[in-house]
Amino acid sequence: MSATVQDIILLLGDSLTQGASAPYGFAQQLSYVYNRKLDVLNRGLSGYNTTWALPVFEQCVAKRSDRAGLPTIRLLIIWFGANDGTLPGTLQHVPLPLFTENLTKMIHLVSSPSSDYHSPETKIILLTPPPVNTHQRAADLATRTPPRPVDRDFNVTVQYAEAVRALGKKEGVPVVDVHTRLWEGCGKEEKNLTKYLRDGLHVNEEAYRLIFEDIMATIKEYYPELDHEKLEMVFPHYADINHENVAAAVQKKAIF
Amino acid sequence: MSATVQDIILLLGDSLTQGASAPYGFAQQLSYVYNRKLDVLNRGLSGYNTTWALPVFEQCVAKRSDRAGLPTIRLLIIWFGANDGTLPGTLQHVPLPLFTENLTKMIHLVSSPSSDYHSPETKIILLTPPPVNTHQRAADLATRTPPRPVDRDFNVTVQYAEAVRALGKKEGVPVVDVHTRLWEGCGKEEKNLTKYLRDGLHVNEEAYRLIFEDIMATIKEYYPELDHEKLEMVFPHYADINHENVAAAVQKKAIF
Repeated sequence: MSATVQDIILLLGDSLTQGASAPYGFAQQLSYVYNRKLDVLNRGLSGYNTTWALPVFEQCVAKRSDRAGLPTIRLLIIWFGANDGTLPGTLQHVPLPLFTENLTKMIHLVSSPSSDYHSPETKIILLTPPPVNTHQRAADLATRTPPRPVDRDFNVTVQYAEAVRALGKKEGVPVVDVHTRLWEGCGKEEKNLTKYLRDGLHVNEEAYRLIFEDIMATIKEYYPELDHEKLEMVFPHYADINHENVAAAVQKKAIF
Repeated sequence: MSATVQDIILLLGDSLTQGASAPYGFAQQLSYVYNRKLDVLNRGLSGYNTTWALPVFEQCVAKRSDRAGLPTIRLLIIWFGANDGTLPGTLQHVPLPLFTENLTKMIHLVSSPSSDYHSPETKIILLTPPPVNTHQRAADLATRTPPRPVDRDFNVTVQYAEAVRALGKKEGVPVVDVHTRLWEGCGKEEKNLTKYLRDGLHVNEEAYRLIFEDIMATIKEYYPELDHEKLEMVFPHYADINHENVAAAVQKKAIF
């Protein structure tokens, strides 16, 4: 069995998070900069909405009664809305009020002192869903067998992004506003979103780079104790090892 | 705390492993293809030799008495030799017999039924250290302040690679022969190793791609039960979720 030596950054989301393990995705980049400090676990679930992900998330957090030897989740990044915001009548659609309710439950699961999963050490960051390019999405869906009609609407996704911003404000949770970043970055022209979207829905490498930058800036501003440049390494730099007693010198260090 | 939902691929090594979380490194690529199946933990320790890494490794594996709730290490990839094979008199040098002895202890730690850390589910792959380009390395060290003399020898590293191959044969552990792959790939000309090495010592993206390919091929050949294409996902595909009872439908699945 794998013993706990490093605490965790947990990434909870849909395909946008699952795909962030690709080169320059924020899962990859977080893994790289937090090497020897925190482990990054990608719990991105392609196609999932918040209703389906909520009971998954409950399985990803240990109950208070069941924590011996398990790593602490130091940072939780929650990113939904891309599937919740599909049009009513689709399998993935979650109405806006329920979307907010589900996200609230995810936050409270770890932040509420009355929760069985209460984890006061867990800092949270919310991300807003990216804008959709319905032109690009329509072209992609038209190539499917059989061809499928467009399942998302630009203005609907705007509302899901706004719901995340409002929830962050209400709950005091910092928000990385992916939606605004990409929208402004493309000159506020839906067709120009090809700059950041592969298929009208999924972000490309350039967008992932911006998202990673914004996550890093948010950590520095709101959770400076998690800044990767300030955290020590769990195991010492090789030049600092005391050769008189190597086993003692390389004992893992509690870095929090 | 982070609850166990996926088992583990553990990467144990030096800077070559630590750096494999970079884009196209094998840590990144393993994370990507094993998403939703196995978590990849990078325990690469820049500058470490096998003598320093052995007591670290003991901390990364749970004792048999202490395993409740912890994830199983399904695959262990061990990659050393680049620092052990520095010239005698340097801080990092580990004599060849001790190098083999340390690697043997790492293998036996999990494979020996008498070990407190015995883990019969853990499959092991060894990697040989890459060839060094002493011309490139010398140029790099000459730029340091103060300038440093060359600390590695091409033919010495050849011996450490051979020791890993011999150990693999003796212990019945498959070996990804990075050394031979890069040596043959550069036409067996030390100066041509610039094709694969950034600084005479550390591998570049192209080399990492080859190493990942060879790790994948080794898994398919020796441990087909770990082939990422054959493993199921721990949480179901979104289209397979039974909406009558979502909580039951998304219970994590024991995929082994």
